[in-house]
Amino acid sequence: MRNTTTRKTMNPFTPNPELDLVLVRESAVPPELVYQAYTTPELLEQWFCPRPYKAVDWEIELTPGGAFNSVIVSPEGQRFPGAGCILQAVENKTLIFTNAVTAGFRPAINEGEDAFSFTAIIQLEPSGTGSRYTATVMHADAASKHKHETMGFFDGWNAAFDQLIELMSNHT
Amino acid sequence: MRNTTTRKTMNPFTPNPELDLVLVRESAVPPELVYQAYTTPELLEQWFCPRPYKAVDWEIELTPGGAFNSVIVSPEGQRFPGAGCILQAVENKTLIFTNAVTAGFRPAINEGEDAFSFTAIIQLEPSGTGSRYTATVMHADAASKHKHETMGFFDGWNAAFDQLIELMSNHT
Repeated sequence: MRNTTTRKTMNPFTPNPELDLVLVRESAVPPELVYQAYTTPELLEQWFCPRPYKAVDWEIELTPGGAFNSVIVSPEGQRFPGAGCILQAVENKTLIFTNAVTAGFRPAINEGEDAFSFTAIIQLEPSGTGSRYTATVMHADAASKHKHETMGFFDGWNAAFDQLIELMSNHT
Repeated sequence: MRNTTTRKTMNPFTPNPELDLVLVRESAVPPELVYQAYTTPELLEQWFCPRPYKAVDWEIELTPGGAFNSVIVSPEGQRFPGAGCILQAVENKTLIFTNAVTAGFRPAINEGEDAFSFTAIIQLEPSGTGSRYTATVMHADAASKHKHETMGFFDGWNAAFDQLIELMSNHT
């Protein structure tokens, strides 16, 4: 018997408007520098959280199943550790990470009023001398999407990306 | 600045006895046939669930992010759809799938008394003319591991693997 498979799955990059949040940004920062900003602890620390919050103590292993961990620090110094997992890393093109599993693909627990699971697909394309950045953030259900949106997804991710642009525009 | 990463993550294949269930089986079935049994809908239907249960309507896409879906049918004909996702597929060697995310890496919802998330790492090695099969099933916490174990993990996975051996021993 031949090994047969069926292929009914949706393209993972096709967003579902009921469940997903999508942010698109055109900028003068080329794909290589956006990718570098997303995968380098010393740079992530400077842009990933809208100031005055900060994400520190990054642990990143750029391979499927690798860690994508950091600790968010509030202006008052409170620490919120976050554990994620890299699902795909294609240099200068695609980065997929999730908090639904942690390093080594272990299932995560995301319980509580403010908690939800998400998977972020970061896609980078050249655009002129800069890039087009598409962040597709997928959720399990409409309630999680809504929770993420009302927590300020667009303000937060836009402000963070502004910080990335500022940081990488002066980057050599 | 160079792209730097830290590598503090645990090897994904090192089980944690507090959280994981591990089943090892030596058999006369070579790795190629065990892998074929695990990835072919027509074969999975015949062995994946201990009889008289059956897993039907398989949708499999053997690539990271691909579907690993089926419907379990009880002897009374009740249908329980299950959605999973392939995380890694290395022919004849390793298959990793999870129900923590669904096809396209979308986070899954596993709520309710009998529900839990797990990731299964299937490793195959040649052993004589047959194989050594190691199934490492990872959970988010000790409670989920305990739930899975008391639901009959070892009896169920052993009985299913017996069916796989029976099926593939006569397979040409």
